[in-house]
Amino acid sequence: MRTLNIVKIGGEVIDNDGLLSGFLEKFGALQGPKILVHGGGKLLSEVSQKMGLEVTMVNGRRVTSKATMDVALQVYAGRINKSLVANLQAAGCDALGLCGADLNIIPAVKRPVKEIDYGLVGDFDPDGIQTDMLIKLLEAGVTPVFCPITHDTKGILLNTNADTMASGLAIAMNKHYTSNLVFCFDKNGVLSDHNDEHSVVPLLNKQVFGGLMDEGAIHSGMIPKLGNAFDAIAAGVNQVVIKNSEDLLETGGTEIVA
Amino acid sequence: MRTLNIVKIGGEVIDNDGLLSGFLEKFGALQGPKILVHGGGKLLSEVSQKMGLEVTMVNGRRVTSKATMDVALQVYAGRINKSLVANLQAAGCDALGLCGADLNIIPAVKRPVKEIDYGLVGDFDPDGIQTDMLIKLLEAGVTPVFCPITHDTKGILLNTNADTMASGLAIAMNKHYTSNLVFCFDKNGVLSDHNDEHSVVPLLNKQVFGGLMDEGAIHSGMIPKLGNAFDAIAAGVNQVVIKNSEDLLETGGTEIVA
Repeated sequence: MRTLNIVKIGGEVIDNDGLLSGFLEKFGALQGPKILVHGGGKLLSEVSQKMGLEVTMVNGRRVTSKATMDVALQVYAGRINKSLVANLQAAGCDALGLCGADLNIIPAVKRPVKEIDYGLVGDFDPDGIQTDMLIKLLEAGVTPVFCPITHDTKGILLNTNADTMASGLAIAMNKHYTSNLVFCFDKNGVLSDHNDEHSVVPLLNKQVFGGLMDEGAIHSGMIPKLGNAFDAIAAGVNQVVIKNSEDLLETGGTEIVA
Repeated sequence: MRTLNIVKIGGEVIDNDGLLSGFLEKFGALQGPKILVHGGGKLLSEVSQKMGLEVTMVNGRRVTSKATMDVALQVYAGRINKSLVANLQAAGCDALGLCGADLNIIPAVKRPVKEIDYGLVGDFDPDGIQTDMLIKLLEAGVTPVFCPITHDTKGILLNTNADTMASGLAIAMNKHYTSNLVFCFDKNGVLSDHNDEHSVVPLLNKQVFGGLMDEGAIHSGMIPKLGNAFDAIAAGVNQVVIKNSEDLLETGGTEIVA
């Protein structure tokens, strides 16, 4: 089977023009079929605040009211997604901006209210991803660029974690390709000492992960990110790596192992 | 050749939940390949003002600063476009939201500064529209939904009039299909007396158009809209009709004739 690269970039790369243009150049040069998934939570918080909306996070997850969802659509699907598409097109990469509602690619369900009501947040099953058109597009040389939004198939758009979306796409597409999943951010990988960029953990299994959590070396947003990474490996994704966006075309970073 | 319907809806339909849901139901029921093009200038002005930006119009055309373009992306490509996509998916129509940068479908040039500097406004040549992927998508049963944004192919996104985009798409696709272009709004057609919804002009040629302009019956935004309509007819588009969004599936409205 052909190799498919699914690359996720976070807000820390998107918000930094220098990092972003360097990344897009490298991503454009990546050979073979590829998918880009982006976040952008920092800009969403910024625009939300400008529009007088309160930003509420619980366990690193955003509570999404109707008003926040409108702004999430604006920032993710509009401003960030189309800017990435235009810049990739300029770099000769035939990009197509998508959310999970487009072509009904990622049907989701609104997260049930338990202790916390996250509002308009969508959870999806990787087995429910509609891969047919995605494969046709990839085989036609198109590079899909996903923003972290799904839909309930009844007309409601839902906010979805970008790491989870990247992991889900890697799992779903692994039936048709050899999926490699790369989480790009502004650090060199998972660090055993977050003050030392040279302390990259080259191989991370669940045992090492547990140890680093106990030591407090891994915390906050890195915990759900690694949860998504382990989900992908458990579901048979070929390779999952967490690395610096500047090193996209090089070896290095932290490889997740079962 | 197969018939392709290109339907444009304006802000007066988008902003009215009742009109919009009625329209989307009818559009979803329209048989055969079809393309939706939407505007949304009223919401753009509203959000711009909320964000403290000045709204400047010259001859009914928006002057688009960098800050206004960011908001245009948010409102057009994000909020309106993806809401339409999600609602069409709910109605069983396999919608795909696009701007002119996606798949490089509509390359444009920034409007040259003459007496007025319109800022980030894009003009395009219908002959430059990249129809290959659009045809593949249509033939796969996909319904493209365009927001009024193009790009200069060098990474800059440009604001483009939605009527002009609909007309340009109809002209470009007319080489491969029999294009029918429908401008939907909240009136019954071109009216000879704007106070009387029953005064619809059934057939409008340039001579009648000139007469109605002289009388003042046609003015402001209707003038460039009709300019786009006559451009489409002059370029050989099969049929151009201006009608009420509620009558999409019925006869009626104003048909433009050479």
